[in-house]
Amino acid sequence: MGSMHVGGRNVTISGKPVTEVRRTPGGPPTRIDPNGSYQVEQAYVQYFLPAQRRGAVPLLLWHGGGLTGASFETTPDGRPGWLNYFVRRGWDTYNADAVERGRAGFAPPDVFAGEPIFLTKTDPYERFRIGAGAGSYSDDPGKRKPLEGSQFPLDAYDNFTRQFVPRWLSTDDAVTAAYVALIDKVCPCVLVVHSQGGLYAFRAAQARPGKVKAIVAVEPAGFGYADQAAALKYIPILAVYGDYFDVDKRWSTIRDNGMKFYDAIAKAGGSVKVVHLPQVGIRGNSHMLIMDRNNLEIAELIQRWLAGQESLYK
Amino acid sequence: MGSMHVGGRNVTISGKPVTEVRRTPGGPPTRIDPNGSYQVEQAYVQYFLPAQRRGAVPLLLWHGGGLTGASFETTPDGRPGWLNYFVRRGWDTYNADAVERGRAGFAPPDVFAGEPIFLTKTDPYERFRIGAGAGSYSDDPGKRKPLEGSQFPLDAYDNFTRQFVPRWLSTDDAVTAAYVALIDKVCPCVLVVHSQGGLYAFRAAQARPGKVKAIVAVEPAGFGYADQAAALKYIPILAVYGDYFDVDKRWSTIRDNGMKFYDAIAKAGGSVKVVHLPQVGIRGNSHMLIMDRNNLEIAELIQRWLAGQESLYK
Repeated sequence: MGSMHVGGRNVTISGKPVTEVRRTPGGPPTRIDPNGSYQVEQAYVQYFLPAQRRGAVPLLLWHGGGLTGASFETTPDGRPGWLNYFVRRGWDTYNADAVERGRAGFAPPDVFAGEPIFLTKTDPYERFRIGAGAGSYSDDPGKRKPLEGSQFPLDAYDNFTRQFVPRWLSTDDAVTAAYVALIDKVCPCVLVVHSQGGLYAFRAAQARPGKVKAIVAVEPAGFGYADQAAALKYIPILAVYGDYFDVDKRWSTIRDNGMKFYDAIAKAGGSVKVVHLPQVGIRGNSHMLIMDRNNLEIAELIQRWLAGQESLYK
Repeated sequence: MGSMHVGGRNVTISGKPVTEVRRTPGGPPTRIDPNGSYQVEQAYVQYFLPAQRRGAVPLLLWHGGGLTGASFETTPDGRPGWLNYFVRRGWDTYNADAVERGRAGFAPPDVFAGEPIFLTKTDPYERFRIGAGAGSYSDDPGKRKPLEGSQFPLDAYDNFTRQFVPRWLSTDDAVTAAYVALIDKVCPCVLVVHSQGGLYAFRAAQARPGKVKAIVAVEPAGFGYADQAAALKYIPILAVYGDYFDVDKRWSTIRDNGMKFYDAIAKAGGSVKVVHLPQVGIRGNSHMLIMDRNNLEIAELIQRWLAGQESLYK
């Protein structure tokens, strides 16, 4: 196992005042000169290489918005996440933090346009199809109104909120560029991505179609460039959707956008397998199905699909 | 292996305007209501539990300022870091990201006082005893002036700068509180800390003296409360210092502050073993000795000291 940072660029900042601070209580005063070169827009990735490798290529995990690679590790209620699952199945697994998330760090003011957005505790509860829509969240756990039959580990929702990180709305190109740098470094590979990770996966695969051997898009919230759909025609793609898409029409809109994108890939000669989990008897999944109580059942479904792709798995 | 977030608190924000954004290109408009409850000031920790455990208690790694737990993983030039070393030696090892660093995330505006500080590429080169003081850094690697005999992997300095993360100067109490929550969760334990991690280790140990069985402070940049030095009198402490302390008098000041603190512990009946590496024939170490070329030689020195502590290691 190990880790690295990849990609990014240098920026130069000038014309700012020099200040003096104490970096630790009682420490000596030190100058802070904010002018100079900065390394910005790198991504972070941690990898685990199983002794008994069965995947022919590495598997890259890309998290969703407002989260980090931690969302693929232990679940908020303490069960194994997808990272452990896929490593145990014999995949070299690379778990990333996108640009400006987690261990990737974030850049000084003015490098990213706009201000970061932060997640309240209310927002994902009501928006990720955990609670029954607007008004379902309460700071009092006893007064929350979860969706009936929810597979989310509801008792651990407060702990889940510790995973939230801010994000900027202006960094999509920078995130994609760093992920392309990651692909150039460790691929050919398979991308397994969640939510916002879909945007980056499809775009990065469009930039490096020869290096991406399969994409598993778990409730992707964004997609590639429609006019470049043909670039994906030789890449097997699996898209997985959970339950309760009728609760909030934004999710239907996002899924419809996906269907249009998959259609464009199909028209260009490719194919996308779409699994709506309720249609195969798996019910109750929130948007956070990577950590729902049946998260390993869904990982198993993905594993079977991957193992069925030619020459990806021994 | 697994991970978790620990500690922190809830804050409520009110009176801010609601806005509408598209979270992904082409996605549906969604409301951002910044008012409500936030989880803030948690720490992140990832753990690795070796099959053949030899440490009697877990070992907790706490990184320095402007960095994350990544600094204990693979070195910038691709060699194993201390995390891998100590796991291989049979220690259950917990590698943290402090509050507001890395995967711990950071809080909305006004929760932390002041603005974060960012590291230029110049600053650590000249301040961490890698380059020969002020003016030694250049954006052109060929024009940099490293200290003679430096053990830092100089060709990987640019890659090292990808590890930098911002930090706030106002969060010491919050970081200490989250680390105390970590101690309450996984200790008794040994703390192995670098630079700013020293501040938190000594203060957290003063808060939970019965749960900390040893402290290894690697160039600690901050210390505990002098009037509570007696709380540490039963805790074996090893302090390790690298080379070139004459290059920049701030380092001598920091080390002198350490010596005063260790003296206070000694006067209270405790003891601190201080190793100045050049005095034991190990020369050329920067402040980043955890990733210097001889980083595992220093880890070995620490391992020998730990193995010599009563009932800590089998």
